[in-house]
This record gives sequence, structure tokens and C-alpha cells, in this order.
Amino acid sequence: MSQDDDGCLGRDTEALARVRAIFEPKSVAVVGASQRKGSVGLAVFKNLLDGGFSGVIYPVNNRAHSVCGVRAYPSLTAIDDQVDLAVIIVPAAQVTKVAREAGEKGVKGLIVITAGFREIGQAGLMMEEELKAVCQAYSMSLVGPNCLGVINTDPNFSLNASFARRPPLPGNIGFISQSGALCTAVLDYAARKSVGFSKFISVGNKADIDELALLRYLHDDPNTKVIMMYVEDLRHGFEFIDEVREITGGDNPTPIVAVKSGRTAAGAAAVSSHTGSLAGSEAIYDALFLQSGIYRAQTISHLFDYAIAFATQPLPRSNRVAIITNAGGPGIIATDITVNVGLTLAKFSPETTEILKSSLPPTANIHNPVDVIGDAGVDRYRAAFEAVLKDENVDGVIFILTPQSMTDIYATAQIIPPLAKKSGKPVLTSFMGELDVRDAIDFLERHHLPHYHFPEMAARALGAMYKHFQWISRQHLPELTVSPDREQARRLIGEALAAGKKYLGEVEGTRILAAYGFPMLPARLAKSAEEAAGAVRELGRCVFKIVSPQIVHKSDLGGVRIGIESEDEARAAYEDILRVVGKNAPQAEIEGVLVQKMAEKGVEVILGINRYKVFGPLLMFGLGGIFVEIFKDVSFRLAPIRHNAARRMIRSTKAYPMLSGARGGEPCDTDEVERCLILLSALATENPEIAELDINPLIVHPQGQGCSVADCRILLDPDRGR
Amino acid sequence: MSQDDDGCLGRDTEALARVRAIFEPKSVAVVGASQRKGSVGLAVFKNLLDGGFSGVIYPVNNRAHSVCGVRAYPSLTAIDDQVDLAVIIVPAAQVTKVAREAGEKGVKGLIVITAGFREIGQAGLMMEEELKAVCQAYSMSLVGPNCLGVINTDPNFSLNASFARRPPLPGNIGFISQSGALCTAVLDYAARKSVGFSKFISVGNKADIDELALLRYLHDDPNTKVIMMYVEDLRHGFEFIDEVREITGGDNPTPIVAVKSGRTAAGAAAVSSHTGSLAGSEAIYDALFLQSGIYRAQTISHLFDYAIAFATQPLPRSNRVAIITNAGGPGIIATDITVNVGLTLAKFSPETTEILKSSLPPTANIHNPVDVIGDAGVDRYRAAFEAVLKDENVDGVIFILTPQSMTDIYATAQIIPPLAKKSGKPVLTSFMGELDVRDAIDFLERHHLPHYHFPEMAARALGAMYKHFQWISRQHLPELTVSPDREQARRLIGEALAAGKKYLGEVEGTRILAAYGFPMLPARLAKSAEEAAGAVRELGRCVFKIVSPQIVHKSDLGGVRIGIESEDEARAAYEDILRVVGKNAPQAEIEGVLVQKMAEKGVEVILGINRYKVFGPLLMFGLGGIFVEIFKDVSFRLAPIRHNAARRMIRSTKAYPMLSGARGGEPCDTDEVERCLILLSALATENPEIAELDINPLIVHPQGQGCSVADCRILLDPDRGR
Repeated sequence: MSQDDDGCLGRDTEALARVRAIFEPKSVAVVGASQRKGSVGLAVFKNLLDGGFSGVIYPVNNRAHSVCGVRAYPSLTAIDDQVDLAVIIVPAAQVTKVAREAGEKGVKGLIVITAGFREIGQAGLMMEEELKAVCQAYSMSLVGPNCLGVINTDPNFSLNASFARRPPLPGNIGFISQSGALCTAVLDYAARKSVGFSKFISVGNKADIDELALLRYLHDDPNTKVIMMYVEDLRHGFEFIDEVREITGGDNPTPIVAVKSGRTAAGAAAVSSHTGSLAGSEAIYDALFLQSGIYRAQTISHLFDYAIAFATQPLPRSNRVAIITNAGGPGIIATDITVNVGLTLAKFSPETTEILKSSLPPTANIHNPVDVIGDAGVDRYRAAFEAVLKDENVDGVIFILTPQSMTDIYATAQIIPPLAKKSGKPVLTSFMGELDVRDAIDFLERHHLPHYHFPEMAARALGAMYKHFQWISRQHLPELTVSPDREQARRLIGEALAAGKKYLGEVEGTRILAAYGFPMLPARLAKSAEEAAGAVRELGRCVFKIVSPQIVHKSDLGGVRIGIESEDEARAAYEDILRVVGKNAPQAEIEGVLVQKMAEKGVEVILGINRYKVFGPLLMFGLGGIFVEIFKDVSFRLAPIRHNAARRMIRSTKAYPMLSGARGGEPCDTDEVERCLILLSALATENPEIAELDINPLIVHPQGQGCSVADCRILLDPDRGR
Repeated sequence: MSQDDDGCLGRDTEALARVRAIFEPKSVAVVGASQRKGSVGLAVFKNLLDGGFSGVIYPVNNRAHSVCGVRAYPSLTAIDDQVDLAVIIVPAAQVTKVAREAGEKGVKGLIVITAGFREIGQAGLMMEEELKAVCQAYSMSLVGPNCLGVINTDPNFSLNASFARRPPLPGNIGFISQSGALCTAVLDYAARKSVGFSKFISVGNKADIDELALLRYLHDDPNTKVIMMYVEDLRHGFEFIDEVREITGGDNPTPIVAVKSGRTAAGAAAVSSHTGSLAGSEAIYDALFLQSGIYRAQTISHLFDYAIAFATQPLPRSNRVAIITNAGGPGIIATDITVNVGLTLAKFSPETTEILKSSLPPTANIHNPVDVIGDAGVDRYRAAFEAVLKDENVDGVIFILTPQSMTDIYATAQIIPPLAKKSGKPVLTSFMGELDVRDAIDFLERHHLPHYHFPEMAARALGAMYKHFQWISRQHLPELTVSPDREQARRLIGEALAAGKKYLGEVEGTRILAAYGFPMLPARLAKSAEEAAGAVRELGRCVFKIVSPQIVHKSDLGGVRIGIESEDEARAAYEDILRVVGKNAPQAEIEGVLVQKMAEKGVEVILGINRYKVFGPLLMFGLGGIFVEIFKDVSFRLAPIRHNAARRMIRSTKAYPMLSGARGGEPCDTDEVERCLILLSALATENPEIAELDINPLIVHPQGQGCSVADCRILLDPDRGR
């Protein structure tokens, strides 16, 4: 966005200005520009020169008087003019010195292409920290080190500050990549498909400017309609979610599609040997993307498939798809994937059916998928396409053509762009084959109709668009208000830490959860058989559990008795527990026996917290027992969460029907589980000392009857949080 | 296979000869050959003529003296020479007449291209039946009707009897397609990728020659190395499995990869409106492919990806993969998919690691995935490639290149074919991008190195090859011998049918299962309180269940009591059940109360039979209760099964750890469950009157202690089986 655009100055933040310093310079110095064939210094300088940069380019080289015919300077300081951006290609050991000169010179942005920093280990990491410190001292923005560079195709700048082999076409896709090499392959692939980019950034080691800063900038960029991202690691947690959900789902949303590699353990190992970055667990990234509204692609080719659709087509307003084909098989394949990705086949209006009936031969299929039959010429395709586009029951069209002997391939392609545009509905095409359909595909791509080799990919891309539509049009549940006794909880945690405790069992855990307002079962700690009897008299039917800091698996050691109803039973059970545990775990210090009112019946679920570096607390929900252990049927979100997320956590588990009463059972009180998840989120966010927490089980009673925490444990980390 | 190949005459069957009549003619007549531009009659005739057919071609046209300069004949009978094959393009109404003439003339094979038969409904179906009858009467083979035709690239024939727009290159892939239009797209796509075909068949309506006949023929064809198949429906069940498992996994195995469309209900609806074929359920086709050793591809592009790998590369001998790349990101992506498809990253030998260390720069990754770094030239790639190919711990290589400024793309491609060939190991390549890498990709494809745009697809293809290797090298468990009392079972079924019964409850079901040797719990049918007491005295702890032909859900009506131990309890329970059921279901005829010994504890599983048209009985296995109902965690096989399949059925369920004792519990007697599945298979196969059968639950006791059938029900269909 150019700086004289009045309307934008107001919302121009310092953060955006820092990224602008990289993408929107009026003068660029290339430190390490070179004439040596095959050198990166030559490649970068030539790209800038040939790219038609709108400002001034200064090669800096202390051994040459000129580079490619342009007067060279021995150093940055020797340039007798303002330099906005410096691209640095000198050896790693000299980079910091050059950065300092740049700072002195008043340069606002640096792109450090040079490799040999944190990715090579400890020595490199130290150099990178030094470079970072210099940039901070002079308030310079920094892209890299260890990157391919950046490209801005905006004709006001035409900046190609990269050593990419092939410049991109201008277009409306912003691309952010953590792999420089992937950038070159992507540019090459995109050129073939007539896909254009607004901005193209290789982030390298992300010493300063990273994905989040770039997403903000691209969201603000009127030339960028969709963002493609290749990610190996991210270094923000909730801050990322909080900002990116506004980018993808707030006013004027920008869809983001991303591939995150290093999914498997082996892949993650490859990541860390590659960039030295810590690979986050899959669950964290899935939660992060889900909560940010980023659509996660499984492969690079899907990333392209989706981005091209978003870049060129309007979003579908609902999920009803019409398929037009001149061959049954591909229509069936498209139907299969259409349904699998959450779309449905549109049911045509009687008018549409009538038009199709009158314009197609009797052997054609006038229902969806519309089969215009192998010998269809342009007219039949046009009639069908026009009819389904007009139908109010159709939200998007997949247009399939197979080259048959009577097919007029090119002329059929020509009818699509004007009709598609007029309709305001997304149209995705698949002209199957390679050679015979080549010209028609080129025509479609030139006219911004997304084309896919196989119809299943078109269906998948339309599915991604619909998911984005669902995201931007989602309803927000009214937030639940909770009022935890934060002071009491902090006091309890402080006392435990002061006493040197890390592991808190049920007695102390219960107090902390009670302070936050979780539904606890009434309980008494009995230190004698008589106290146990008194507790049973007071509470009614109870469960007895041994309390000892050394004992985690209470049942395994004979430390649990259930269904104690009378005072006599209570005395006997107390003595018996102490005797058995004393035999099984003679070393354990026994604090007493917890006498807890037995919960009413219900469905057992598990709630949990796990805290991670960078990302903060990850919340877990799942149904108890085998559901978690065998089916791994759990859902995760990064805290804090809101009401929507709490509900989705519960409903996205496969076992949700067990709670909803769908299987003929009584519906359970899932409202109360939602409230517990909100409490859990608050507890995790407000108490950084809680490293892990398990509520296992939370018993969910029938609707309206609430839940009961039946057991819990907490692991504290004294080093965190202060 | 040419007919003078002595070695083959012995195993030449009549079935093969019937397909040969289509593919290997010495003379072909084209009935409906035409000079009209854009007509199918012209397209077919030109394809035959231009294709260099090795025999004689006769155009038949009753209104032209010649077609494309070739003397035409007014009818088949007017040809004064032997005609082996007739390609028929005349209007549907005339096809049967022409077929009859062909029969009289002594023609051996027909290809009916004309559409308008069963795919258009009842009238068409009748014409198709008539056509079929004519072919049978004259012993003519028939491909079609409603097809694109067939192609045989064998230079001894060079037969292109199709109206495909583009002839295929010769090669070693056999392609069978149930969609003619898809054929043309596939040919076009293949041409671009330098993929060649041995035989190419559009099967159309499959009135005579179908996939099974073609698979036999292609398996026998020395020019065919792999078979690609696009299927909408199949019309054989166990016969298909029985023969195809020999093709894919017997001597000289031929891999088969297939796409079956119509996966979803909507897709299946599209199938039936398209070809009028009955869509089978997904579970049946999954079982059919699995048991046949056919690798099922999810999409057409995957079908290609896999077939190209099989066609050009040797199979991996195990699953240890080396990845070589000049860029980290693509290496990570390949690693992720490699692991997801069941392969592992090879651990290199010390020698390999040493070579990599000495030939690569210090910043390179010398572990798997090997990263030769962005500035790698040919030498570095060669050193790494040679080293990993030689390593005994490597079974296959994925070779990735991204075009970077210093990359010598073409020269790097050139090193691959000779080294790959020498190694005897599969090598799959991914030169990423489009334009810059185009020449290198063409080089690789010309030299039969499979190439994939993105490395994840290479990994997926290698995974498919490994799956096939596992299939052909699988161990066969010794078969279990069972000796059911077949006569007794048949007598019981016969009696039930004679009495007009369709639904057999526990009492009769138990007798039939007992005859087959299932482990039944001892039980007595009590018709009075006193008989019930006597049964309990005899059997010990029992469960009581009401017996009535009108009552299926016994518990729901109060018809079940468990844990009856004494004679008094027995008398009371008997009276109570009769009273409660009498109130809840006053209309039900009560036959008595089944007094059944209570089973020892164990894990509950479900065994079932469902019989389908065409495919016969489908067997089901799953863990009881929620596992089946919520997680659909069941496995299916078409009967009959052998020991291997019985074991896989059990072990492929997600809940298998519940049985194996992996969760700390006691291992269950899965050997006995395997035996029960074999019994179930025999029962299903030998008694076609059994339409449905449920054993729910079968209680599986600890290892060595067997199983107990605790309940069962059978549905008979008197119209089947005779």
C-alpha cells in the first residue's frame, strides 16, 4: 500500500512499517553484488536490475568499479545518498559488520541472504544473535538470514531482491516459505500455470521478521487476495491465533492455506537437522491452524490447488455443487470427492430440469452430475452451464470436459469465463488430458478460471473454499461468564510451591479446582477410622482413597474402596486400606484417607492441560477409558478458548453420540462440560506454574444435573510463570 | 502372446482364446466405416489404417464404393475372404442383425462401439440380451456395446480398433476402463508423460468380455507388466478373488492398481444413472480388492502415479527408503509421506555415512534424508546417489531436485538411469517445478525413470510398490481343518423352511451353529417352572431368556434374567418372565424359556454374515457394543476365507489391543476366534439359504479357554440357494 494513500495512514502501525521497510524501498544497496558467473551476488543484482525496480540500485563491492555496467561502491558508507534497503550476500563472518554500517547509514531494512547462522549450530546461533542485536539497536527490520530473498510485484516497486531463477508473474497470491529451495520450485510451477504472486517471501531463519508480521502486512496489502504458506515451525502461540483469526475471519478476511511439514516423528527429525528448529507436536499445530482459521493442506500440490481457487473465484455461499461433464466416469469421481469433502450435489429447480431436458438429448443425464454425453458440442455445454449457474439451488460449478472425437475443446473453454463471471458463483474446471486440451487449459488459466488435471482436485478445492466460507460466516455463541476465586487458587499454588511440592494429588488439586468453580464432590480427609466414620455419616455413600505424596496409582496398591455406606463399614475400610497399602508400599508416607461422596452415575470424560514452550497451555478433551487409550479420540485447543471452541472440542470427538443421547441413552449435561472447559482454559492461562493437569474422570450427569470431578492431579513447575 | 509360442499352447485355455479373438485378429471389418467428417465410423477406420495394422482391413458401408481410398463392401457377407474381427458402429437397432451376419460369416470377435443398450433402460437392455444371445449362438466374443474400442500395441498386430483421438505409445501398462471418455483423457495424459501401453480396453457395458477375462489375458501377455483399471461395478464375487489373487500373487505376479468410483452414496447414484449398473457397497469392494491383491488408488492421478512406478521399476525388497534432496523442505515433506504410507527412513551403514561425510560439505545433512545443499552440482548428487544405492540397508531411493541458481538440472538427471538400473533397486524422482526442469523430466521419463511433480507422490508410489511386495511375499498360515456336521445343519435349515420359518431365534440358531462346531453354551428349553429348576440344577449358574418367534429384542420386553443359581430362584424367574412378557407382548406365542449356562467372563465380539447378489456372503468381525456402533470398527471379507484372512480380519480392527492383551489385560483366545471365522465362512458358503446371521456376542475367554456363543439369530431366504 503506497504511503500517500491517505485512508491507510490511520491504521498504519509500527509493525506494518517495519515490514514495509523491506518491501517498499525507494533505494536498494546490494552488498556483495558481483559479476562472477554462477554467484548469488550476480543473481540477486541481475534480478533487481532486470526486474525493473522503480527506485535506485547501488551495487556494493570493494574490488570492482562497476557491476553489470552500474557504478559500484566500495562500502555502504561510500554511497552518497539515502539507502532504504540493503541486501547482504557477503560471507557470514562479515554480515554483522555490514549490518552495523547499514545502521550507521540509516538503512531501514536488511535482507540477509547469506547462510551459515543458527542452522549450522551453536557458533552460527551466536552470530545470529549478534546480528539481531545490531538490527534492534538501529531499529532496522531484518529478513533472513539464510533465505532466498523477497519479491514485490506491485508496479509501484517491482522489487525482485532474490536469487530466484525465474521472476513471478504479478498476481494476487502472497507466498511465505520457510524453505528457500521450495520457493524456486513453486515459482517455476506457477509460471507454467500462469499463476501470479503479489508478494513472495523466503523467511529463512526468521531472526526478526516472521510469518505473523508478514501475515499482517499481506492482509493489509490490497494486491493480496489469498496467502499460501509453507511452514516448518512457528514461534508464537496464542498471540498468533488471536491476530490471525482476525486476518482470516474478521473484516475483509484473507484466506490462508498452509502446509506444515514435519508431521511425522521422522519428518520432525528431518526438520531439526535442517533448520535447527524445534518441531512442535502435530496436535499443537492442528489446534493452532484450526483456531486461526488457516486451512491446512496435506501436500504442496494441494496448497496450489486451493490457493488458485481462492485467488480467482468468489466463495460459494453454501455447499450445493453442480457438476457438468461429457463423460460419466469423471462425473462419478467428482461426485465422490465432492461428498467426501463436505459438499453436496445440488438438487436442481424444476425450471433448470426443464431447460436441461429440452436442450440435451434423451440419453443425457439431466440430473446432477449433468452428463451432456460424449458427442456434445459447444451449444449443449453452454445450455447446461447457463441453466445450472442460474439455478438458486446451485452454489458452485465443477465443469468437466474429456476430449472425445466430436468435442470442440477450445470453443467450449471460451464459453466459460464470461458466464462464470456474470454468475458471481465459483466455477472450477477440469479439461482432462494433457496435449489435446493444452491450448484450452492455457486459455482458461489466462482468464483466471482455476483448472485441475483431474476433477477430484477441483472438488477438493471447492471444498476448501466452502470451509473458509463456513469459517467467516460462523456464529459466535454468547460467552460464558465464570468468576473463579483467583486469589485463593494462587495462594494454594504458592503454598504448595513454598512447601517444595511439585506433584499435587487429589486433596490439594481438589482445593485448587474448587477455587476455580469446578463442580467438586464433597470430601473429607480422614486421619483416623473414627473421622472416616464421621465423614460417611455426614456425606452418605462414599468412596475411600489413600492419600500419599508417593502414591499416584491408588487402585493398583489397594488404596481405593467404593460404596462405603455405614459407619461400621467406614471404620473397617479405613483400617483395611491402611493395612494393605502399608504392605504394598511400606515406604509411602500416608497422610490419611480421602472420604469422598460417591458421584451419581454418568458418562466419564477426561479434561487435561499440557503446557508447551512457545505455545503455552494445550487443552484436551476426550471420553474416558478405551476411547482415549485405543481410539485416541480426543480434541485439542490452545488456551485461552471461548465458548465456540469449547463446544467444538466436545462435538468433534467421534464418541460425542455417547454424550448427546443419540444412541437412545439419556442426553448428558454437555453445557456443564463446556463451562468446565472454559474454567480449565482460565486456570491454565492464569496460572503458568501449572505444567500439567488431569481431571480424570469428570463424570457427566444427565442434562441439567451437572458434572462431578471424581479425580484429579496437577504437576507444578516452579521455574515457570514468574 | 503369439500363437506360435510353443511354451504357451499348453496353458492356453478357451477363455484366453476368446479374448485373443478380439486383440489378435489377422483381418478386421469395420461395419459402419464412413468418410463423414466428425463421424465415429471415420475415426475408427482412420485409427486402424493409420495405426499400421499388420493384417487386412475391410470397410463395410452399403452406400460408398470406398472409404479413405480403400475398397468398401456393402455387407460383411460380401467380403470374399475370412474376417476375424468385426468392429460395429451402425445404429443400435441394426447391431443384432449385423452380429448375426458376422456369425454366419465365421467372425470370431465383435467390438460393438454403438451405444443405446442397457445404459438407456429396459428397451436397450432387451436389445443387449438379444445381441448377447446371437454372440453365444455363434461362439463369438464380444467387447461392448457402448465402448470406445480396444488397442493392441504389440507390433505383431498394431491394432487400434477404437475412436480414441490419440493413439498410445507402445509400453507395458495394460489399461482396462469402464468409462470410454476416461480412456481418451488417460491417453492424452499418458502421451505427455511418455507412458506407453501394451493393451488398452474400453469395456463398455460388458455384455460378454469383462474385467476378469481381460485380467487373465493381460496376465498371460508378456508385454504387460502392470494393469491399471477404472471400475464402476464388478459382476463376480469369489470367483474373481480366487482367480485374481493368482494373477497378483501367484507365480509371475502382475500388479493391478484400480480406481473404483461410486464410493459415496451420491457417487453410486451417479453410477446407476450413468450405466445402469448396480453399485455395490463400499465394504464389499474394499474386501474384494483386498482379497484379490488389487491395490486400490483413491484418485485417477494416484492410479497413474502407481502404475508408472510398477511399469518401470523393480519392487523394493523391504521398506527402507533413502531420500536425496538439495533442499530441506521437500525432503521433510517426502519423509512425512514415506512414514505415513508404511515405509521407513533407512539407517545408513557406517561406510555410507563415511562416504557422504567425505563427499559433501560440512553443512550438508549426511543422515537420511540426505541434503546435498542448494549449491550442489552433479558430482555431489552422484556421490550421494551411488553411496546410498550401494548400501544394503537401502531398499529404494527417492531422488529430489529443486532448481536453484547453481543446479545443473539436465546433467543431474543424466546420472540417474545408469546407476539406478545397475543397482536393481527402485528409484523414483521428483524434479520440482515445471519450466526449468522440463527437459530433465522428459529425459527421465524417456529413460523409464518415474517422475512426480511433488516428492510426496513419489513416496506414495513407493509405498504402493512395497505393499505389493508384501502381498507377493506373504506367508501362508497352515489351514485350519474343521469338520462340521453338514447334514445335520442342512436338515435343521430344511425343517425350518418347511415349517415356513424365516427368522430363527436363539434356540434353532444354536442348533445349527452347534452342528457346525461353534462353541455353544449348554442350554435347555424349559416349558415349565419345574423344567427350569431342573436345568439350573444340571447346568449351574444360568441366564434365562424368553423364546418366542415374535420377540427379537428379548431384554427390552423384560424377557431376560441373569445369574440364576438356585432351583427356587429358577422357579420364580420362570414365572416372573412369563408374567412380564405376557403383559408387555400379549400377542407373542411363548415357546418357553431358554435356560443357558452363564458364560465365563471375556471380551465380547460380533461375527456376522450378510449375503449380497453377485458377491455372495460377506463376513463381518468386530468388537461388541460401542466399538461397532460408534466407531464402526469392523472388518469385512467375502466368503470363503482362509486362515490368513481370518487372522487379518481380527488384527486389522483398531480395538484389537483389547483382545491381544496389549493394554495390560489378559490376552484372549484369538486362535479360537479364527476358528469360528473359518466355521462362519463354511456355514455361509455351504448354506445359501442363510441370508443374514449374527453371533452377538461371541464371548472370547482368556488364551487357551476358548469362546462361547452367547446369542445368535439367523434370517433365512427360502428363494435363495436352490
